[in-house]
Amino acid sequence: MPIKMKAAVLMGQDQLEIKEVQTPSPGPQDVLINVKACAICSSDVSLMHKPWPHQPPYGSFIPGHEYAGSVVAVGEKVDEFQPGDRVAVEAHLGCLRCRNCRLGNYTACLNYGKLDKGHRANGFTTNGGYAQYAVNHINTVYKIPDSVNFEEAALITNLGCVLYGFETIGGYVVGDKIVVIGPGPLGLISVAVAKALCAGKVVLIGTRESRLQAGLSMGANRIINVNNEDAMEAVMDETNGLGADLIIESSGNVNGPQMAIEMAKRMGKILLLGFPDGPVNANFSSLGKDNKSIYTVRGEGWANVGRAISMLESSRISLKPLATHAFPIDEIKEAFQTFTQRIGGAIKVIVKPNAD
Amino acid sequence: MPIKMKAAVLMGQDQLEIKEVQTPSPGPQDVLINVKACAICSSDVSLMHKPWPHQPPYGSFIPGHEYAGSVVAVGEKVDEFQPGDRVAVEAHLGCLRCRNCRLGNYTACLNYGKLDKGHRANGFTTNGGYAQYAVNHINTVYKIPDSVNFEEAALITNLGCVLYGFETIGGYVVGDKIVVIGPGPLGLISVAVAKALCAGKVVLIGTRESRLQAGLSMGANRIINVNNEDAMEAVMDETNGLGADLIIESSGNVNGPQMAIEMAKRMGKILLLGFPDGPVNANFSSLGKDNKSIYTVRGEGWANVGRAISMLESSRISLKPLATHAFPIDEIKEAFQTFTQRIGGAIKVIVKPNAD
Amino acid sequence: MPIKMKAAVLMGQDQLEIKEVQTPSPGPQDVLINVKACAICSSDVSLMHKPWPHQPPYGSFIPGHEYAGSVVAVGEKVDEFQPGDRVAVEAHLGCLRCRNCRLGNYTACLNYGKLDKGHRANGFTTNGGYAQYAVNHINTVYKIPDSVNFEEAALITNLGCVLYGFETIGGYVVGDKIVVIGPGPLGLISVAVAKALCAGKVVLIGTRESRLQAGLSMGANRIINVNNEDAMEAVMDETNGLGADLIIESSGNVNGPQMAIEMAKRMGKILLLGFPDGPVNANFSSLGKDNKSIYTVRGEGWANVGRAISMLESSRISLKPLATHAFPIDEIKEAFQTFTQRIGGAIKVIVKPNAD
Amino acid sequence: MPIKMKAAVLMGQDQLEIKEVQTPSPGPQDVLINVKACAICSSDVSLMHKPWPHQPPYGSFIPGHEYAGSVVAVGEKVDEFQPGDRVAVEAHLGCLRCRNCRLGNYTACLNYGKLDKGHRANGFTTNGGYAQYAVNHINTVYKIPDSVNFEEAALITNLGCVLYGFETIGGYVVGDKIVVIGPGPLGLISVAVAKALCAGKVVLIGTRESRLQAGLSMGANRIINVNNEDAMEAVMDETNGLGADLIIESSGNVNGPQMAIEMAKRMGKILLLGFPDGPVNANFSSLGKDNKSIYTVRGEGWANVGRAISMLESSRISLKPLATHAFPIDEIKEAFQTFTQRIGGAIKVIVKPNAD
Repeated sequence: MPIKMKAAVLMGQDQLEIKEVQTPSPGPQDVLINVKACAICSSDVSLMHKPWPHQPPYGSFIPGHEYAGSVVAVGEKVDEFQPGDRVAVEAHLGCLRCRNCRLGNYTACLNYGKLDKGHRANGFTTNGGYAQYAVNHINTVYKIPDSVNFEEAALITNLGCVLYGFETIGGYVVGDKIVVIGPGPLGLISVAVAKALCAGKVVLIGTRESRLQAGLSMGANRIINVNNEDAMEAVMDETNGLGADLIIESSGNVNGPQMAIEMAKRMGKILLLGFPDGPVNANFSSLGKDNKSIYTVRGEGWANVGRAISMLESSRISLKPLATHAFPIDEIKEAFQTFTQRIGGAIKVIVKPNAD
Repeated sequence: MPIKMKAAVLMGQDQLEIKEVQTPSPGPQDVLINVKACAICSSDVSLMHKPWPHQPPYGSFIPGHEYAGSVVAVGEKVDEFQPGDRVAVEAHLGCLRCRNCRLGNYTACLNYGKLDKGHRANGFTTNGGYAQYAVNHINTVYKIPDSVNFEEAALITNLGCVLYGFETIGGYVVGDKIVVIGPGPLGLISVAVAKALCAGKVVLIGTRESRLQAGLSMGANRIINVNNEDAMEAVMDETNGLGADLIIESSGNVNGPQMAIEMAKRMGKILLLGFPDGPVNANFSSLGKDNKSIYTVRGEGWANVGRAISMLESSRISLKPLATHAFPIDEIKEAFQTFTQRIGGAIKVIVKPNAD
Repeated sequence: MPIKMKAAVLMGQDQLEIKEVQTPSPGPQDVLINVKACAICSSDVSLMHKPWPHQPPYGSFIPGHEYAGSVVAVGEKVDEFQPGDRVAVEAHLGCLRCRNCRLGNYTACLNYGKLDKGHRANGFTTNGGYAQYAVNHINTVYKIPDSVNFEEAALITNLGCVLYGFETIGGYVVGDKIVVIGPGPLGLISVAVAKALCAGKVVLIGTRESRLQAGLSMGANRIINVNNEDAMEAVMDETNGLGADLIIESSGNVNGPQMAIEMAKRMGKILLLGFPDGPVNANFSSLGKDNKSIYTVRGEGWANVGRAISMLESSRISLKPLATHAFPIDEIKEAFQTFTQRIGGAIKVIVKPNAD
Repeated sequence: MPIKMKAAVLMGQDQLEIKEVQTPSPGPQDVLINVKACAICSSDVSLMHKPWPHQPPYGSFIPGHEYAGSVVAVGEKVDEFQPGDRVAVEAHLGCLRCRNCRLGNYTACLNYGKLDKGHRANGFTTNGGYAQYAVNHINTVYKIPDSVNFEEAALITNLGCVLYGFETIGGYVVGDKIVVIGPGPLGLISVAVAKALCAGKVVLIGTRESRLQAGLSMGANRIINVNNEDAMEAVMDETNGLGADLIIESSGNVNGPQMAIEMAKRMGKILLLGFPDGPVNANFSSLGKDNKSIYTVRGEGWANVGRAISMLESSRISLKPLATHAFPIDEIKEAFQTFTQRIGGAIKVIVKPNAD
């Protein structure tokens, strides 16, 4: 391994700069990954602009939590992996010792950010994937089959997160009517997962035609452009006036939660995958009169990244259409610009620290 | 049975008047109940002021959904009950034919208010208990033991509702730390249920000392008067800075939901039992980052009134301290006034259409 | 409607005879169905040989619980259906008034067989579908789309039962490794459902090559003929020596349950869909040391027939390959013979009381 | 710390001998416990007679998994505990890296017995508590309040196991009718937990009057001595002929499982806490026709030992009546004899490696 590597270090607010830094070494239960692809997530944009809780200080922090690559070295206690393995990762290790971790809820670790307790969330509280090499505890590493390329593999936490959301709301949606609000990456994947799990009807709501069209190709039964149609009316039309069994609000719009509450059937469920920064208005009285519930998920919990890989392997879902753009790590600023401004219809943008 | 009976009929906005009306007859699967006690609920106050959905028109509607009495006649298909049985009721029958009812979620019936489909919610969409006699489908009737008097029995839907809330959030809280916001009847009962189900610590938050003291006698480990103490600080102090496993927001205050979100542990649950009329502000971003969920319940579902009676029978809980006042039906206006203005420290106020 | 109709009446042990009987009339919440197809189930064979609990007496009982047809009349309170609707049915209505029914568990009705309480299980305790006309309460009737023919629709309770089984064990099997023992109709459908719900790997175990091949075409990743291979070894080979996440035992063989216990992973689940008549041996000690659970299902509960239709409508599954043979009702004896002796590779055999 | 300590080492079949061995040292995330009390469990008797899977070889293994004591040293990474803390333990650490552990199911660790992977189950695969000192990973250690003495604390895994069982079957039993078969320690604790969680009625079935009387004092509503009464008839009498909601089979008798199946209500649940060594007969057909399920638990999972301590602290349950006998470690053979032969009405027998 080279002693030095190239990495994108957060030097200040919105200042991500390519630096030469020391290549990290794997601990006893870690692997060292040669990162082939690291996808940009909107949370990267958010934490670069305003640090998230327990984020390392400027000058020392390498972001990036959606990545894939090849194992190049393994810790002394590791026999689950060996050099050459192609792998994808999840961000949250947890501390493995708090009550939430002990119960399997490691993305909600109670020692979040406490490195001395063993907690790591690569790309949030420890170094991530915008670098030529990254270290991951084996709990956060999954082998990928040859049929999954690194760019698709870099998106796997998105699928893991959506699956975690589906598992959280019960996991069984056969024949259900589902509304997805917001055709961002998580919204589009939600459409695909809903269909893969045999939902009866999936309605996608958004504002931009190209994204809605992408949703159609992901399997949506109906797309609704709120600029052209009354979304509430359309949903009631699709649900015999009863509302949908499940609403996945993924837009992060301040009006999203209230729209979700109104569109849900009595006893219906609402899953929030997108969030505006500030407080939103929501009529909880209507929520209560109709016995509805609101669920959220942090990250890609309950080992759903493993399930995600299985879905890719069996071609039950493809993330490839979402990986619209890729840039070498030296062009990381252009990569972020492409993502945030959605240049060229960008959905997910990949940064490539190493050649495949 | 007398052909005519005394009943409180809603004649117009906030106009509840004692009238002589026809005594109802039980259908094949119904019982006729001689109502001994009917408790005033804040939803009565609300629907008298502004009609709820599917409420019968002024001049024909008898409110009141929390009642108990003696069976005096049974329908031709009924052998589960016989005249003389002492009984309490639940409000929601459901239609027994929509998908939600078929799945056991009858308080969230999809034919709510459609009488021709069989739906009934006594005191909401069909006549209730502010009358000398009331008709109930047997699904909504439960025998009570001699140790439970009619006044306590009239409060049973409150306990049923809280139990339904506990079952909704999972039902297993042994050793958990629970915060209850709002010492109204449902809040106080929540304290008692939490303790009965072996919660580790129950903190009750409110503004009025007398109610907080009532909470203490219901079993709260700590009471917090927000006028004197920083509630957030106190909760963190009681939870090692982690937040509580479960927050029951029962105040209906516009600040309640946000306070609940902040006080919940990562992966914690929030159960809403009180709701302000209008929309409230809530930071869903914080909800999501910490993987919290929000649950609501309508009514006293999943046959929890049956479970409630068991708790009273075995003295695991007593509702008697909540039944602070009682009035004959002729003084129903004074009864409502006592309840809404909390005269004499009123918690629950009982209307008695017949002598015991 | 004709006053008389043709029906197969159980006249004595194993004596099913075509008789002319009175055409039934629908009650207020019923529909009358012109039966186009009624599939033979092994429980029909069983109850014809030895009456099941609460079965009507010889001379008055029309079996058959898997049927589909056209609505020809509706009860006075019905607006959910109208004459001409193409429909499939489920067997269990329940009584709608016992605690299990109230909670949505109508296939486990506590008033099973008590007709005066309202319970019906068509083909078990009330008349079924081996007749030109049958009466069903609307709760047990589902519209089918034009793309589903009556023969496939007659098999829908099989899919409903398997789906109920999957919902019972949690309903979420993405990426899981599943073993199905016994390639009978329910076993083959289990394979298809497991794949449809994105199981990672499905292994089918049996003894007859033709049925195993059918399983392969339903989606099994691997088939194991126990006559040629060591099934335990093969399953361990497919699961890295850990055992499978879920074992569906559908063979009804006396060795099935023990095999299932041994093949399950630690914390794994076992779903029993087939049962030998008498007691079986099973090592519960091994079950306990490895924290495994055993689930069973009766019938097609929790409205899963509705979900089943959605799967057929969206072509996520096809039952057509299972409907191998069909006979007019006059040849019902030949139909049963074909089914029990598996003549011509019969899987499911359809009886047709009317022309399509 | 002394370099040497006294410990009971398993030298051969049924040969537990007091030896002087090296005092163990805590690893970075461990604590060293001065063991004050270690309770004898029937699994100790079993594994001493015939080694359990992955048990260390004769001459090197110190059994004992139910113990409590004082922390005397902590590992370098530990700040959750400090010397002087009074603590109780659970047996299963798990490996913290397999899929089951990652999901919180550490008692069903997939690396069971693989010490190099980090797995430990003290008293089963690693050294336990029949010694003056024992090492525990902090995940398996819980502080106990002053009101809980060491003898009671040594029994805490029993309560943890029963609570894990209750959580496994859903955790919510308010008003339910529960039958417990077998008044051994787990059976008696099951009675107490059922009552503490507000079960409506608890029936205890056994053969020995003294144990049944103990059950009565733990809260059983009715005791049935099968030598004097027909247990099936009695249970039906107590359940209106419907059977019980939950059967806890804790006798380990070969007839227990079948009795449990028969006594359960339709849709009822069966929890197995006791197991005969060999296979048992059970009628799975009846299980299936009535939609019943069978659950088992291994150990005291999902951190229920923490919940158990909370119950002791709040006096919701007391284990003191079960700690009938105690012996210094030098008399450990007499202790085992007292336990296995139930001398003097022994229920649980405590071994004391150190003075309190």
